[in-house]
Amino acid sequence: MNPPESKPQVPLYEEVANKVVEMIDSGTLPIGSRAPSVRALAKQMKISVSTAVAAYRFLEDHGRLQPRPQSGFYVRAASRENVEEPEMSRPPETVSDVTVGDLRLLLLTEFGQPGTIGLGASSGAVSDWSIKTVHALMSSISRTQPLLSASYPPPAGMSTLRRQVARWYMRAGCKLTPDDVVITSGALEAIHLCLRAVTQPGDAVAIESPTYWGILQTIEMLGLKALEIPTHPRTGPSLDALEVVLGQNLVKSIVLIPSAHNPLGSIMPEDSRRQLVAMVKKANVPLIEDEIYADLTFETTRPRACRSYDSSPSASSNVMICGGVSKTVAPSLRIGWCMPGRWIKEVTGAKAWLNIASPTLPQLALAQFMDEGGYDRHLRKVTSIYRRQVERMSDLVAEHFPRETRITRPQGGFLLWVELPEGLDSVKLHDRAIKNGISICPGVVFSATGKYRNCIRINCGLLWSAAVEQAIPTLGKLIAEMTDS
Amino acid sequence: MNPPESKPQVPLYEEVANKVVEMIDSGTLPIGSRAPSVRALAKQMKISVSTAVAAYRFLEDHGRLQPRPQSGFYVRAASRENVEEPEMSRPPETVSDVTVGDLRLLLLTEFGQPGTIGLGASSGAVSDWSIKTVHALMSSISRTQPLLSASYPPPAGMSTLRRQVARWYMRAGCKLTPDDVVITSGALEAIHLCLRAVTQPGDAVAIESPTYWGILQTIEMLGLKALEIPTHPRTGPSLDALEVVLGQNLVKSIVLIPSAHNPLGSIMPEDSRRQLVAMVKKANVPLIEDEIYADLTFETTRPRACRSYDSSPSASSNVMICGGVSKTVAPSLRIGWCMPGRWIKEVTGAKAWLNIASPTLPQLALAQFMDEGGYDRHLRKVTSIYRRQVERMSDLVAEHFPRETRITRPQGGFLLWVELPEGLDSVKLHDRAIKNGISICPGVVFSATGKYRNCIRINCGLLWSAAVEQAIPTLGKLIAEMTDS
Repeated sequence: MNPPESKPQVPLYEEVANKVVEMIDSGTLPIGSRAPSVRALAKQMKISVSTAVAAYRFLEDHGRLQPRPQSGFYVRAASRENVEEPEMSRPPETVSDVTVGDLRLLLLTEFGQPGTIGLGASSGAVSDWSIKTVHALMSSISRTQPLLSASYPPPAGMSTLRRQVARWYMRAGCKLTPDDVVITSGALEAIHLCLRAVTQPGDAVAIESPTYWGILQTIEMLGLKALEIPTHPRTGPSLDALEVVLGQNLVKSIVLIPSAHNPLGSIMPEDSRRQLVAMVKKANVPLIEDEIYADLTFETTRPRACRSYDSSPSASSNVMICGGVSKTVAPSLRIGWCMPGRWIKEVTGAKAWLNIASPTLPQLALAQFMDEGGYDRHLRKVTSIYRRQVERMSDLVAEHFPRETRITRPQGGFLLWVELPEGLDSVKLHDRAIKNGISICPGVVFSATGKYRNCIRINCGLLWSAAVEQAIPTLGKLIAEMTDS
Repeated sequence: MNPPESKPQVPLYEEVANKVVEMIDSGTLPIGSRAPSVRALAKQMKISVSTAVAAYRFLEDHGRLQPRPQSGFYVRAASRENVEEPEMSRPPETVSDVTVGDLRLLLLTEFGQPGTIGLGASSGAVSDWSIKTVHALMSSISRTQPLLSASYPPPAGMSTLRRQVARWYMRAGCKLTPDDVVITSGALEAIHLCLRAVTQPGDAVAIESPTYWGILQTIEMLGLKALEIPTHPRTGPSLDALEVVLGQNLVKSIVLIPSAHNPLGSIMPEDSRRQLVAMVKKANVPLIEDEIYADLTFETTRPRACRSYDSSPSASSNVMICGGVSKTVAPSLRIGWCMPGRWIKEVTGAKAWLNIASPTLPQLALAQFMDEGGYDRHLRKVTSIYRRQVERMSDLVAEHFPRETRITRPQGGFLLWVELPEGLDSVKLHDRAIKNGISICPGVVFSATGKYRNCIRINCGLLWSAAVEQAIPTLGKLIAEMTDS
């Protein structure tokens, strides 16, 4: 809760409530302590008892006080509902080269370090069950069919896995055949291959702001430029902005993460997807949709892919789907895929010339895992765990970070986007955190133009532990030190 | 043996011998039949008995007749020694765009088809022992250390494998540390990353002619141009030609396969390597050496890598090593590596942005396989098998292909390069062969400029079988049909 400024129209009980909040925030009334009784407050503030009661009810409604029968009101830990959401982003309206690649590489190397609380990575590991199962399937397949591994896999991938992927996307409302699918070494490679197929060096690409840094690095690697689109933390990119961009013919492609966005956790509403697809079809600009988190949305029904709103057959669609299992089964498998629509031939060729094909055995095992329903069962299990962990992490941030902090309300995945007070340098915070054995992801890497320097992304997908629980208070202390100095 | 044309200086016994060869080649004297007795020949040809004896000794020396005690001379199957080697190649002297990518993709897709005799692929599968062992190691590691797979591997690769690779290259005369190594998804990805680090679109790259088609596609994919260098089938690229190219500043990089070249099987002599490295250092042009077949050379000592002739420390070398285990352990693992010298940071970054990292578990298993000596033992076993199979395949080609055919004398690997009679279209031969259940690799894909249309590359690395043995006579028949028509 941000207390409103004192203005004539604010009722008296709110003014009183704000004074109580100041006492809480200053530590005069510590978390868990008993607030003064209603009578004591009325006397102290020179107000009526009924105003004191109204003030306490107001604070109760806003989650700052908790009534206990026969005992009075107690100071609650700040909870996530007290913390505001970030507003829609306002990136620069011009195309830009991508910067800060070195910092991204440093982070990626750091994420692999053992012995660090990995709040910086984006990697869900609440259970090793799925990895164990897929590895066991690999063992069994390699024993029974060793010769399958004696030759090169086909560039587009093993047909068993392509069949399962095509089948899975019926849930996303898509009609696909195995021939529409190319298996890749992770979803980022899929995005690389798709974006490469539809652009030339120097072209500009529209992206959400903030967006997954891998997409930014792909843009940089392909010699492209980025155009960041204003993005709402719940509903995704501004269609108005995209319409202007398409109308002015500013970009050659659009790369979005419509479902459980990284880092925002936003989900584009169905109507927006329909409208977006109509727009890109009209403008004849290919849309690349990164579906990597789509199977981890908290709603019971998985969102439909944007592609499902394109009535064209897959072989002529200009909506390209990218996805994979790095966020669901295991990042170490490096299995991704794409359904590149009308660019299927170009993407298959580029995959072949890049690294011939992806490894055989993990593809076969994942196909069996999906076929036997293991993938589906696993998703149902982990999604509810991720939801709880995102909520718990939000509460911890609300409790331990400065009052001006804003946090997202993720609708899927396991990432939390945190906007720290203006002026706080999260790259410096990162440097201090890593010395304390905690990795975080500074916001600046999610922008082509160095925005979001006061933001961080927090991974809530870790195997939860006391050390994870302790990391947020530690970060809160580091932030407090930086704010004080 | 190509019989010399009839000229005055040819001795009489050679003229006689040539007439006998004509009788053999025309089928008048079939393979295995008894040649006329010396006396009968003398009478028939109206020559002295001693000339007839000299003619038969000459044919014996050239492997066309075989004497049997108390019985006379018998017609031998043509053997590889009777067949000439190709000459040094003479590619065009200008830079060129890379063509025929579509054919290459068709071939690559075809190679993965089951039920085809895969003479077109380049894939050694004489034993599934190594794959089985690595897979068993994967099973054991995944059971004992499942959490190793719960996070992203580091971009440069698992340190255990980088350590083994660095150690292995001591045999190639190189002093390397694990920090000099980047693990990739196959050797082609390694070449891609290295070449990308040292070129800009539009630059030209010097390559052998013929050369591995993957390199040509990498050049095309990166927007580069190719400059084919005359290449000798035993000793590799012409240093004279390379010196001119470097002197005129025509290329920004050189990509070679110095050890057991694909498709030629050539090995650059030590002196040439030393001279080459001095040349590229002087010209300050990075040399990329593809070492993928180097562990499969037939000599007992593995050739030193070109890098070993660079006295600079690894971190400042401009000789970049690429390699992997697709030709030795299993292509389906998709494990490669590079030691990119002074471009270590650029290559690590590009690997990260391309597909984050290569899969964890196969890296750990391969590291253990190498550490326990399994890789070394496996190499010793397969290399001698490959050598025998290359010889057997050469004999079959000598026996069943037209007399004008030329074949290489591979010094390692498992590939045979076959030059068919001028004018024979090996792309058409490929089309007919695939209808007969046999894949071959037409020579045209080994050139940027569409050369080698009368050549094919034959894989001798297959699990040998009666079907493989029968494939060459079948190809010989198809060639004969094409020559006749």
